Amino acid sequence: MKQAKWIWRPGEFEIYHHMLLSFRRQEKGCDYPCCWHICRPEASVRFRRTFTAEKDGAFTVVTRGKGMVRFNGKLWPVNTAIPVPAGTYDVSVEIFDLDAFPSIYINSDVLVTDESWFTDPYDAVMVPAACEPAFTSPEDDPAVFPFAYEDIAPVSVEDVPGGLLYDFGREQFGPVRMTVPDGAEVLLVYGESREEALDPENAIIRETLTAADDPDRPARAFRYIAVLGDAAKDVTPAARLEYLPIEDKASFRTAEPGLDKIWDLCARTFHLNSREFFLDGIKRDRWVWSGDAYQSYMIARYLYNDPSVTERTIFALLGKPPYKLHVNTINDYSAYVIVSVWEHYEATGRLDFIRTVWPNVKALYAFIASRLDENGYVVRRNGDWIFVDWGVLDKDGPHCFEQILLWQTHRAMAKLAALLGEPDAYTDRAEALRARVLADFWDAEKGAFIDSFTSGRRFVTRQTNVFAVLYDFVEGGQKQSVIDNALLNPDLPAITTPYFKLYELLALCRIGKIETAQDYIASYWGGMLKEGATSVWEAYDPAQSGAAHYAMYGSPYGKSLCHAWGSGPILLLCRYVAGVYPTAPGGRTFRVAPNPGKYKAFQATVPVGEGFVYLDYNAPTVTVRATVPGGVFSDGRTETPLEAGETCTFTLP
Amino acid sequence: MKQAKWIWRPGEFEIYHHMLLSFRRQEKGCDYPCCWHICRPEASVRFRRTFTAEKDGAFTVVTRGKGMVRFNGKLWPVNTAIPVPAGTYDVSVEIFDLDAFPSIYINSDVLVTDESWFTDPYDAVMVPAACEPAFTSPEDDPAVFPFAYEDIAPVSVEDVPGGLLYDFGREQFGPVRMTVPDGAEVLLVYGESREEALDPENAIIRETLTAADDPDRPARAFRYIAVLGDAAKDVTPAARLEYLPIEDKASFRTAEPGLDKIWDLCARTFHLNSREFFLDGIKRDRWVWSGDAYQSYMIARYLYNDPSVTERTIFALLGKPPYKLHVNTINDYSAYVIVSVWEHYEATGRLDFIRTVWPNVKALYAFIASRLDENGYVVRRNGDWIFVDWGVLDKDGPHCFEQILLWQTHRAMAKLAALLGEPDAYTDRAEALRARVLADFWDAEKGAFIDSFTSGRRFVTRQTNVFAVLYDFVEGGQKQSVIDNALLNPDLPAITTPYFKLYELLALCRIGKIETAQDYIASYWGGMLKEGATSVWEAYDPAQSGAAHYAMYGSPYGKSLCHAWGSGPILLLCRYVAGVYPTAPGGRTFRVAPNPGKYKAFQATVPVGEGFVYLDYNAPTVTVRATVPGGVFSDGRTETPLEAGETCTFTLP
Repeated sequence: MKQAKWIWRPGEFEIYHHMLLSFRRQEKGCDYPCCWHICRPEASVRFRRTFTAEKDGAFTVVTRGKGMVRFNGKLWPVNTAIPVPAGTYDVSVEIFDLDAFPSIYINSDVLVTDESWFTDPYDAVMVPAACEPAFTSPEDDPAVFPFAYEDIAPVSVEDVPGGLLYDFGREQFGPVRMTVPDGAEVLLVYGESREEALDPENAIIRETLTAADDPDRPARAFRYIAVLGDAAKDVTPAARLEYLPIEDKASFRTAEPGLDKIWDLCARTFHLNSREFFLDGIKRDRWVWSGDAYQSYMIARYLYNDPSVTERTIFALLGKPPYKLHVNTINDYSAYVIVSVWEHYEATGRLDFIRTVWPNVKALYAFIASRLDENGYVVRRNGDWIFVDWGVLDKDGPHCFEQILLWQTHRAMAKLAALLGEPDAYTDRAEALRARVLADFWDAEKGAFIDSFTSGRRFVTRQTNVFAVLYDFVEGGQKQSVIDNALLNPDLPAITTPYFKLYELLALCRIGKIETAQDYIASYWGGMLKEGATSVWEAYDPAQSGAAHYAMYGSPYGKSLCHAWGSGPILLLCRYVAGVYPTAPGGRTFRVAPNPGKYKAFQATVPVGEGFVYLDYNAPTVTVRATVPGGVFSDGRTETPLEAGETCTFTLP
Repeated sequence: MKQAKWIWRPGEFEIYHHMLLSFRRQEKGCDYPCCWHICRPEASVRFRRTFTAEKDGAFTVVTRGKGMVRFNGKLWPVNTAIPVPAGTYDVSVEIFDLDAFPSIYINSDVLVTDESWFTDPYDAVMVPAACEPAFTSPEDDPAVFPFAYEDIAPVSVEDVPGGLLYDFGREQFGPVRMTVPDGAEVLLVYGESREEALDPENAIIRETLTAADDPDRPARAFRYIAVLGDAAKDVTPAARLEYLPIEDKASFRTAEPGLDKIWDLCARTFHLNSREFFLDGIKRDRWVWSGDAYQSYMIARYLYNDPSVTERTIFALLGKPPYKLHVNTINDYSAYVIVSVWEHYEATGRLDFIRTVWPNVKALYAFIASRLDENGYVVRRNGDWIFVDWGVLDKDGPHCFEQILLWQTHRAMAKLAALLGEPDAYTDRAEALRARVLADFWDAEKGAFIDSFTSGRRFVTRQTNVFAVLYDFVEGGQKQSVIDNALLNPDLPAITTPYFKLYELLALCRIGKIETAQDYIASYWGGMLKEGATSVWEAYDPAQSGAAHYAMYGSPYGKSLCHAWGSGPILLLCRYVAGVYPTAPGGRTFRVAPNPGKYKAFQATVPVGEGFVYLDYNAPTVTVRATVPGGVFSDGRTETPLEAGETCTFTLP
């Protein structure tokens, strides 16, 4: 027989673990529920298939829920051997699990559970079952996320007023075990910074523990842990790193000062945030945000090129209809989900996944469409958050940024519909929208898009125009005008958030301004390294010093010191410096178009499709070897096909 | 301060307890999940209000979940006193409860929880909070349904082969406590009949217990319990009745032989099935079925005239959108929900309830409408069950019965929309549908409606024509034709299910054929009484004898011996013999139109609105006293206003 696997309804594993995750935030002694609607898994699910037993046998349905088996004309209990006379049968298993989500496991000579089963949540639409590679034995529990663990020891323990300060050397995430003796009481203060750990009043996570408390504390972010109180020296916090065992596929090495360290800082930061789903940051709030995730998908495609975290995150963000508010309550964030589903297909070619999420993608699109105004524009409706970015934006009336994103959403839907053989109800909308946006938002005098045509301020921001370039909303002379008058216009307000900075750098790289990105990497990420960062911060302002770096959102330690969007250099270096990217879904064809910019030399390994591209650049020559066919080398002028496995040397112009 | 109450999002209490109920069915050692989609409560809910503290004080948010309080510019934990300086505040409590459903309780000098709070499940649509009268102290737990309990002793204990048989005298429902000594094992067999309890192989509920099992067994239906095995005499099943403490308001007493006993049998049966929701029957399957519930609503309005079980049942049946299949998977059953919401308003005038369920009613209607064919007819779609009734029906193509029910559904929507000040998108549909039905299904030659116009069989059934009369789908000569050619036509197949029989009897009473109903009550219910019934059976065939009465659905004890729909005589006697019914919402006006039929004398108490009507009939005079204004007495020829509190005597023609 084939490998037996725990199976469930597609998306239920993700919905369940996303639900748990969304209610784990704690802040200053409060449980802080996620501030948007969180879906629950189905209470009950049916599993079915037809099978043939060549000889007599038996099978047992293992489940952590309850239910029954319809087989051979009778009802049978679960977790009990059911005899199977040789023959062909329909078998149906009906399970409810009110603690987690319905899942089953069968491993026998006559029948096993795997993706060949079908399931429905009693809606009469049977779809193939889902599974995860970690759940293959009857003892496995799909309600427990399969993290890996590693003991971590402090690099120093220091006497501090009132107790001890443990320094674990660098940013960590994991559970701490600490047994408090009878009658004693200790205060545990977690700090991403030393200052935070030593400031119980203002630290985000602090807790008072006694012998009555569970010695196993929930997994949290920290570098420092302060143990305070009379009994501080009688207890020892035994810490473990909790992580997802996922191997890097990309690497990038140069002789540029500090750049290898920046890469490693970014990679570690990204791994710490790659968990059940892509987190924004590991300290606060540890929720799943679509805007942050959209950037993480792009980074993950290069760093470890494994679709699993991306797909789980898309499942979690899509949740389940009905959609009553936008994803994360943010209009842009619903759009990013749909755009990213298409981009995920482009990057991976994983059609089964697209087919699975398609009903929810359509429902989310219908929700977006239901809230457009009479001109087909995104406008603010009850409960909407028109986010775009923090900073100076003119949000009066329809905002141009949202319309460009909507245009890309219509186009993503058109491509997804074509892929799945469904009618195109989208392209006409995209074209009508584009024409209207050009009429309403294009300022011929300024040669760029304005944010709002209703306010009268005719304000031009980088954000809107960055997306016009990133998404090819304009071409030719109009694109050049956007570049000259917005992207490269020093008089416009600078983008100040690292979140949007990544989009801006991507747009700059896209128009060949690689040196600008390289300079920014050196100063911004290099600057953080000099400040002693062991993971990339949520934001960094070189003008600040000391503990001022840790303040944000009105709280002295409100800033996350390990934020996924800080890992952008991995994307910039792989996609634009090494210049490797797929040109057909799943990397069936791909291009290698290195642009070393300021770098004199680099060695890069970049995954694409099922293979890798190895580059070794020493100005002005680059040797390239791709392990898979379909590649083309481009020096910006001519294109040369790459043979799989062959090393070629090119001289860059 | 006002009375403090536990509060929650409207419907969540019902969704939660309906979920538990739907997964309690057991059959022959299997847990038997409900065979349609069951909704789960929300994971998280926000509670908000504005309040003024006249002086300094404090409040504590009591909850069985987790979460936090946003108050006075800070976050505060739950279950901890929060200081309140005198002043006016917005307070917001955010709660998640993954075990049950989010609920809170505050009882303080400055703030209490009650219906004046608002809640949303993070969808930005705040609605008033809900509560139940049983939950008013901080120790109460809304996750535990507030049943009442009463010890019940067996009326006999009998030695039987292999053990003991306990007879509890009549149909019961409740938990049994039984402690099995170490090393022993007993088999517990529940029987609604003696035969079932003594037939472990075929009994619906049997279980083997050891010392390791919880001595408190789940509540189940039984009259008999067999305890079998070597240790049978070492254990004692201590049984309790589990019930809803709800007092009867109606009574009906006559000198007719057996009729008082029939009333009592019906009343007890109805109480046993009036629980969290209206059950179909208490043994098997104990799920909530909309068709059964529709009849129970009508009976409840008379027997105890308390809206609570009806409203909980409507909440449970509506569940939450999106609707992917019909209620209970049955097309008719979705329609009954909508029709019953209107009828509930007519009976009670409870506008707040209507307003609360209206969004889901609209969503369910939209679902129904989305599955109509191009002619606006109900047709069978994937997963649909066009039920109507068991028995001989022509279900080819659109079925006339379903269209008449749809017509009533459109009309109910029109009346609900008018009530709530919303536009009427329904009446035109109703009228167009009626015209089309008359064109397609009316057989002028047969003078009645045919079931199907596509099969060519032109088959006339009572079911379809009963509803044409019940819902006034036809009037005047056409109605008379339906009566003559269908309802009173002895050549048509008889209705054989007690479920549909009640609709038929209602239609017959409606056209004045009260004697037919009275004869049927005497023979059918009287017949069951003679067979020793202690509650009304799911079905009864006088031609059967002995244990053959207990077989159904291919199982020797498959028949439920305590089925709610069997309580119909209560409705027939109050509505048509006593003749009391509201003529304006909530009984603001009402009519008293007694029709004694064959009965020479009766004394009836019938609730209407907030009051009662007392009738004392001794042929040919009836004395009538209504405790509330708005009544009119009708002898079928003239109408006489009734003064509240005054006793009037009339001579019936």
